[in-house]
Amino acid sequence: MLINCVAYENGKKLADIPAADISNFVARPECFVWVALFQPTNEELDEMAEEFGLHPLAVEDARKGHQRPKIEEYEDVLFAVLHTLEAASEAPDAPLTEGEVAIFVGRNYILSVRHRTQKGFADVRARCEREPELLRNGPGFVFYALMDAVVDRYFPILDSIESDLEDIEEQIFVRNAARSNIEALYALKQKLMVLKHAVDPLMEASGKLYGGRVPQVCVGVQEYFRDVYDHLYRIHGTIEGIREMLTTAIQVNVGMISLSENEVTKKLAAWAAIIAVPTMVAGIYGMNFKNMPELDWAFGYPFAIGLMAVIDLYLYFRFRKAHWL
Amino acid sequence: MLINCVAYENGKKLADIPAADISNFVARPECFVWVALFQPTNEELDEMAEEFGLHPLAVEDARKGHQRPKIEEYEDVLFAVLHTLEAASEAPDAPLTEGEVAIFVGRNYILSVRHRTQKGFADVRARCEREPELLRNGPGFVFYALMDAVVDRYFPILDSIESDLEDIEEQIFVRNAARSNIEALYALKQKLMVLKHAVDPLMEASGKLYGGRVPQVCVGVQEYFRDVYDHLYRIHGTIEGIREMLTTAIQVNVGMISLSENEVTKKLAAWAAIIAVPTMVAGIYGMNFKNMPELDWAFGYPFAIGLMAVIDLYLYFRFRKAHWL
Amino acid sequence: MLINCVAYENGKKLADIPAADISNFVARPECFVWVALFQPTNEELDEMAEEFGLHPLAVEDARKGHQRPKIEEYEDVLFAVLHTLEAASEAPDAPLTEGEVAIFVGRNYILSVRHRTQKGFADVRARCEREPELLRNGPGFVFYALMDAVVDRYFPILDSIESDLEDIEEQIFVRNAARSNIEALYALKQKLMVLKHAVDPLMEASGKLYGGRVPQVCVGVQEYFRDVYDHLYRIHGTIEGIREMLTTAIQVNVGMISLSENEVTKKLAAWAAIIAVPTMVAGIYGMNFKNMPELDWAFGYPFAIGLMAVIDLYLYFRFRKAHWL
Amino acid sequence: MLINCVAYENGKKLADIPAADISNFVARPECFVWVALFQPTNEELDEMAEEFGLHPLAVEDARKGHQRPKIEEYEDVLFAVLHTLEAASEAPDAPLTEGEVAIFVGRNYILSVRHRTQKGFADVRARCEREPELLRNGPGFVFYALMDAVVDRYFPILDSIESDLEDIEEQIFVRNAARSNIEALYALKQKLMVLKHAVDPLMEASGKLYGGRVPQVCVGVQEYFRDVYDHLYRIHGTIEGIREMLTTAIQVNVGMISLSENEVTKKLAAWAAIIAVPTMVAGIYGMNFKNMPELDWAFGYPFAIGLMAVIDLYLYFRFRKAHWL
Amino acid sequence: MLINCVAYENGKKLADIPAADISNFVARPECFVWVALFQPTNEELDEMAEEFGLHPLAVEDARKGHQRPKIEEYEDVLFAVLHTLEAASEAPDAPLTEGEVAIFVGRNYILSVRHRTQKGFADVRARCEREPELLRNGPGFVFYALMDAVVDRYFPILDSIESDLEDIEEQIFVRNAARSNIEALYALKQKLMVLKHAVDPLMEASGKLYGGRVPQVCVGVQEYFRDVYDHLYRIHGTIEGIREMLTTAIQVNVGMISLSENEVTKKLAAWAAIIAVPTMVAGIYGMNFKNMPELDWAFGYPFAIGLMAVIDLYLYFRFRKAHWL
Repeated sequence: MLINCVAYENGKKLADIPAADISNFVARPECFVWVALFQPTNEELDEMAEEFGLHPLAVEDARKGHQRPKIEEYEDVLFAVLHTLEAASEAPDAPLTEGEVAIFVGRNYILSVRHRTQKGFADVRARCEREPELLRNGPGFVFYALMDAVVDRYFPILDSIESDLEDIEEQIFVRNAARSNIEALYALKQKLMVLKHAVDPLMEASGKLYGGRVPQVCVGVQEYFRDVYDHLYRIHGTIEGIREMLTTAIQVNVGMISLSENEVTKKLAAWAAIIAVPTMVAGIYGMNFKNMPELDWAFGYPFAIGLMAVIDLYLYFRFRKAHWL
Repeated sequence: MLINCVAYENGKKLADIPAADISNFVARPECFVWVALFQPTNEELDEMAEEFGLHPLAVEDARKGHQRPKIEEYEDVLFAVLHTLEAASEAPDAPLTEGEVAIFVGRNYILSVRHRTQKGFADVRARCEREPELLRNGPGFVFYALMDAVVDRYFPILDSIESDLEDIEEQIFVRNAARSNIEALYALKQKLMVLKHAVDPLMEASGKLYGGRVPQVCVGVQEYFRDVYDHLYRIHGTIEGIREMLTTAIQVNVGMISLSENEVTKKLAAWAAIIAVPTMVAGIYGMNFKNMPELDWAFGYPFAIGLMAVIDLYLYFRFRKAHWL
Repeated sequence: MLINCVAYENGKKLADIPAADISNFVARPECFVWVALFQPTNEELDEMAEEFGLHPLAVEDARKGHQRPKIEEYEDVLFAVLHTLEAASEAPDAPLTEGEVAIFVGRNYILSVRHRTQKGFADVRARCEREPELLRNGPGFVFYALMDAVVDRYFPILDSIESDLEDIEEQIFVRNAARSNIEALYALKQKLMVLKHAVDPLMEASGKLYGGRVPQVCVGVQEYFRDVYDHLYRIHGTIEGIREMLTTAIQVNVGMISLSENEVTKKLAAWAAIIAVPTMVAGIYGMNFKNMPELDWAFGYPFAIGLMAVIDLYLYFRFRKAHWL
Repeated sequence: MLINCVAYENGKKLADIPAADISNFVARPECFVWVALFQPTNEELDEMAEEFGLHPLAVEDARKGHQRPKIEEYEDVLFAVLHTLEAASEAPDAPLTEGEVAIFVGRNYILSVRHRTQKGFADVRARCEREPELLRNGPGFVFYALMDAVVDRYFPILDSIESDLEDIEEQIFVRNAARSNIEALYALKQKLMVLKHAVDPLMEASGKLYGGRVPQVCVGVQEYFRDVYDHLYRIHGTIEGIREMLTTAIQVNVGMISLSENEVTKKLAAWAAIIAVPTMVAGIYGMNFKNMPELDWAFGYPFAIGLMAVIDLYLYFRFRKAHWL
Repeated sequence: MLINCVAYENGKKLADIPAADISNFVARPECFVWVALFQPTNEELDEMAEEFGLHPLAVEDARKGHQRPKIEEYEDVLFAVLHTLEAASEAPDAPLTEGEVAIFVGRNYILSVRHRTQKGFADVRARCEREPELLRNGPGFVFYALMDAVVDRYFPILDSIESDLEDIEEQIFVRNAARSNIEALYALKQKLMVLKHAVDPLMEASGKLYGGRVPQVCVGVQEYFRDVYDHLYRIHGTIEGIREMLTTAIQVNVGMISLSENEVTKKLAAWAAIIAVPTMVAGIYGMNFKNMPELDWAFGYPFAIGLMAVIDLYLYFRFRKAHWL
C-alpha cells in the first residue's frame, strides 16, 4: 500500500506526486522524493524498483522481509533494514512483535517499506517538514530521522524491561518467593533477546555511517548518525547489564526457592520429632510388664503427661533457638 | 560417480561432454565447464585433477572429506568445502547427518564433489540454466548458486530447532515437568552445535568474498556473496540466541524438576505429621496406668476419636493455607 | 544555575565575569573562560550555547542528561559526558545515585554542566588556581583536572565494594551462613554494575586522548590523560576481578546454605531414628500375647528400659562418629 | 642422544655424517643437513649450537623444555616448540603425557630436539626420502612434515575424547546414573584441557607461516603450512564444541543424579506413609477405654486388619498413579 | 632507603657513587648508573627525580605505589610498574602479599623503587656483574634482568597453585568429601586472581617491547623481552586453564557434597522404614480385641517376633541391592 509519495525542493514540500512521476522528479538535481510503502504488493514494489532503479537483491530483501538489521551499500545507494518492536497488546506482560522497515536511500530519493508494524512514520515526516533548514540536507537526513524514530521506540521497551526486573528483584528475597518469579525472569530474558537481536547488528552497521569514510548520502549529517549510534550503544550497554543481572537473578531465585522448600521440610521434620517423643513415652507406659511401679502410682498418668509436655517444651524452645521452627 | 559434465557458452548450455574433452573446452576462453561428482572413485578424481590441473593438497582434501568448512585460494583457483546437513530420517527428532561438498572454482570451470549427501544440486543447475543472463557471469556465479543452495537448506533445520525449543519452553513451567524435557534440551543442544559447526567457519570465510580485495573469480558477483554472507550471519545470530536460551532453559528446568520433587517430599512430610498425631493420642490412651479417668468415661472413646479428628482437621487446613498440601 | 564564570589569562585568574561578556573574552587569544553550571534552566543553557557557539546535538545531550559516558569531537570542540557516583545516604549499604557532568572544551573555554550531583568541583578550581604553571596549559588541562576528580571519586566506592565483599567472604563458610549473605552479594553486584557502567565506556573513550592523533585541545597534556586512562583501566581490572569472585561467591554460598539445610534435615532424621527404636521396643512389650515370659520377670521393665537405652547409646555414638549428629 | 644426522642434496640423501662435519655441509649452498636429537646431554646440544650457530636463548629453551608451543624467528632462523601427546599406557582411560619437540630451521639445516616423547619421527624421515621431489624444497618442507606428523597424532586423541563423551552421554539419562559419570566427565575435561593447551598456541603461531609476509624458510611451501593450520583450526573448533557440551553434560548430570536421589527419598517417604496408617489404626484399637464396642465384636480383629489393608491399597494405587512409587 | 647506587662503564662496575654525583655520571655517554631504592622517603625520591630529570607524573606513581602493572614511555624514558608476589608466611596456605617495583629506564641510567617486597634484587645485580658482555647492553638489559627476575618468581607460586588444585581434585570424588574442599577451592581462586592481576596487564604491556617499533632503550635486547613475554604468556595460559578447572571443580564439588548429604538422608529414611515395620506389627498385636486367636497361641509371641525379623531382613537385603543402604 502506498502511504505517501512527496517531492521536496530545498527542504520544502513541493507536492504529493503520483508514483508514475517519480522518475521525473528524481532526475531534477535540486529535488528529492520521499516515498513510504506499507506491506506493498509485488506490483507496487516492482514499480518502485523501476522508477528508482533499485538493485534486484535489495528489492528481494525488502519484498520477503525477515532480514537481519543491516546497512548495505549498492554502489551509491544505501539499503538499510531496521527492526521495529511493538508490544503485541496493551497487557503489561504482552510479548513483543517484531516488524521490519526496509529503507532505500539514493542521491535524491528515499523509499521506506514497512512490514508487520502498526505504527507508521507520519510523525517523522511532520517533524521534518516543520524544520526545512534540516530537511534541506536531503535523503541522508530523512534516513537519520527514520532511524532515530525506530531507535527511540526501543527506549520505552528497554525501560519496561528494566522496571520489570526491578519488580522481580524485590520479590526474590521475600520468604515465600513464588516459582512464578522464575517464570517471569525467563519471559523477561526472552524479551531481552528479541531486543538485543534488533539492536546489536544495527549498532555495528551504524558505526560505519560516521567518522572515516562514510557513504555519499551521509556526508554532512555524520554527526547525526553518531548520535544514533550513541543511542544504540547505550541500549546495548544496558541490555548487557540486564542480561548479566538476569542470569544472576535466575540462579539466585532457583536457589532461594529451593531453600524455602528445604526449610519447610526441615520444619516438618522438627514437628515430627516433637510428636514422636510423647508417642515413645506413651509406648513405654503401654507395655504390659507385670511389675511397673509407675502404673500403680496415683499420679502416674499426670506424671506421664507432664513428662511428655516438659520434653516437648524443651525441644520446642531449642528448635526455635536454632531457627529450625 | 560422475553426475554431470556440461559445457556452457555465454550462459547457455552447449553440450554434455565426456570427461576426456574437458581440457579442450577449458582452453576456449568464452566457455566454461561445470562438473558434478558424487563420492568419486580415486580414478575419477585423479582424472579431474589432471584435466583441470588442480592442486594436490586440495585434491587430497576433496578425496578424504572430513574437512572443516573453508574457502581457500590456490593461486587463481578457489577451493571451498561446505557442510551439508540433512535429517537422518523422517522422524521428528532424527539426528542430523553431516555431508560435505568440495568445490573447485577456476577461471572457466567449476567442479563440485559431493560426499555423504542425499540431495544433489540438480535444482541449482536447472535454475541457472533458466537464467542465462546471470549464468553468463561464469563459474563465480555458479559457485554462488551452489553456496546459496547449501545455506538455504540450513534454514528449515534452524526453524525446526527454534520451534522445538518453543515447544519445550511451554513444558518447563508445567507442574509435573518430566525429566524428558532436559533430555530433549540436551539433544537440541547437540543438534545446534552441529549446525554451528557448519555455519561459523563458513561465515568467516565467506566474508572475504566481497568488499575490499576479492578472489578473481568473484569479481562482478560480489553483491551475491554479500547476500550469502548475510544469510550466514543471520543464522549465526539466531544460533547464538538459541544457545543462550538453551543454557538458561536447562538451568531453569533442572531447578524446576528439583522443586517438583521437593514439593512431593514436603507434601508427604505434611501427611506424615497428620498421621502421627492420632498415633500419639492413641498411644497415650493405650497406657496402662491404673488411674486414668478418661478410660472409664462412657464417651471416652468417641472423645478420643473426636480429639484426633479436630487436631487433624486443624493441621490439614493450616497446611493447606501454607501451601504445604 | 550558574555556579561560576571566570576568565583566566596565562594561568592566572583575571576576573569573575558576567555571562554576557563571555564571547568578548573567548575572542581574546591569550584568555580562556571556565564556566560551571548546575542543572541549568533552558534559558541559561541556550545563552551559553550562543556565547560559545556550541553544536545543537551536544547541547541537547547536556540539557536532557541520561547519556552514556562518552567523549566526542564536534570539529575542534570536545564534548564529554561523565557519570558521577555518590552514595544516596550515609548508611553503610546505601545504594549509589548516578549523576552526570557534561563538559564542553573549546580552544579557549571550558563549560561544565552538572546534573543530579551533590558534590561540585569547587575544590578542583581551587587547586587549579593554586598551580598557575599548570593552568597555563589552558582548557585541556582543566578538562583533565575535572575528569581526574570524577575518576578519583570512584576509588572510595570501589574500595567499599571490595571490603564489603571481603566481609561477606568471611561469612560464607561459617556453619549457619544466613541467606542474608546472598542478598548482600546480590546488592553488591548491582552496585558493581552501576560502577562498571560508569567506568567502561569512559575508559574506552579516554584511550583516544593520548598517543597517536589526539584532539587539538589535548595536545601538550596527553600524559595527564594517559594517567586518567590508567586509573580507569585499574578500576576496570578490579571490577572484573570482583565480578568474577562475586559470581563464584554466590554460587558457593547458595551451595553452602543448601548444605546447611540438608545437614539439619539429616540431623533430625538421625534423631528420629533414635526415638523410633524405643518406640518399637515398647510396642513389642505392649503386645497382648498370653505367653510372653519377659512380662512376668521381676526385672522385665528395667530390662526393657535398659535395652532401649543401650541401643540408643550405640546409635548416638555411631551417628556422632559418622558426623550425622 | 643423537638419533640421526644426515646430509641431503637436491632432495636426495647424500650420507650419514658425523656431527663434527655439519658445519662443512651447511656451508655448501646446494645441501642441507637434518639432525634429530633425543633428550640430548648438555654437551651434545652445545656442540650443535656451535655447528649451526644457534641463538643462546633458543638453545636454553630447547635444553630446559617445558616451553609453551610457539614459533619464533631469530633473524633468519625459525625456532619452533611443539607439544607431543601420548597416552601414558594402553589402558583406555590412561592420562595423557605431554612431550616436547624443539625444532631449529635454518636456510640449509633443520635440527629437532625431542623430550619426553616415546614415538620418534623415523617414519617422517622415511616418507620424505621416498619423495625427493618434495624434499627438494629443503628444510622448510621438512619442518612442515614434522609439524604435520605431530598434529596428525592429535587426531586419534581427539577422536577418543569425542567417543568417550558419546559413551557418557548415553549414560546420563539412564535412571540410576552412577556418580562415576561425573568423575569420567571431569577426567575428560582434564584431558581436553591438555590437548587445548597444546593446540591453541600452535594454531595461533602457525597462522603466521602462510599468507602475507612469511619467514624466509617457509617461502614456496606456504600452502603446506596453510594445510597444517587448517588441521589445527579444525581440532580447535572440535575442542571448543566438546568443551561446551562437557560443561552442559556435567551440569545436567549433577542435576540428574540429584533427581535420582530425591526420587528414592520420595519413594521411601511414600512407603513410610503406607506403614504409618496401620500403625495409627492399631494404636487406636490398642487404647484402653472401657467402652469400645468394636473390641467386643466377633469380627472386630479381621475388620481392623481389613480397614488397614483397604486404606493402604488405596494409598498404594494413588501413589502409583502420581508416580511417587 | 637507598640500597645501591653504582656506576658502570662498558659493562663493568666502575664504583659505588654517592647520590649527589649521579648527574655527573649520567652526563658521560659511555657510563650508566644503576640505583636501587627500597620504600624511599619523599626526600630521597625527590633527589632522584632531580638528578635524573624524571617526569612528575611517573614520580608520583612511584611514590604512592598501588599502581597496576604497566610500561609507559615518557619521551625517551621508560617507566614500568611490576607487581611482586610473595607468600605472607611459611605456612602452606598462606595468602599472597602483593608488592610493587617501579622502574625508570633512561638512556644511561636505571632506577628501581621497591615497595612492600621482602626479597630484593641483589642476586640480579650479582649475576649481571658476572656477565659484563651482556651488561654492556646498558640499562635496557638491566631492565630485562629485573623483569625476568620478577616474572621468574611467579612460577613457584603458579606451581603451588597447580599442585594444590591437584591435591583437591583427588579429594573431590572421595565419598565423604568435606566441605573444606570448597573452602580450599575458593581460597585457591582468590590466590589465582591475585596472580592473574599481576600477570595479565604486564603481558599486554611487554608485548610492545619487541617486534615492530620498540622504545629506544630496548633496541638490541628485543629478543630478551620476547623471552619475558613468552614466560608471561605461558603463565597466562596456565592461569586460564586452572581458572576453568577451578570453576568446574567448585561446581562438581558442591554437587558431590549435596549428593553425599542426600545419600545419608536416603540411608536414614531406609532405616526408618526398617524400624517402622516391627512397630506396626507390634501395634497390631497390641490391639485389645477380645477375639484375636494369635494372642492365645503358645508360640504367638515368637511367631510375631519372627514375622518382624523376616520382613526386616527382606527389606534390608532389598535396600542393599538397590544401593539405598
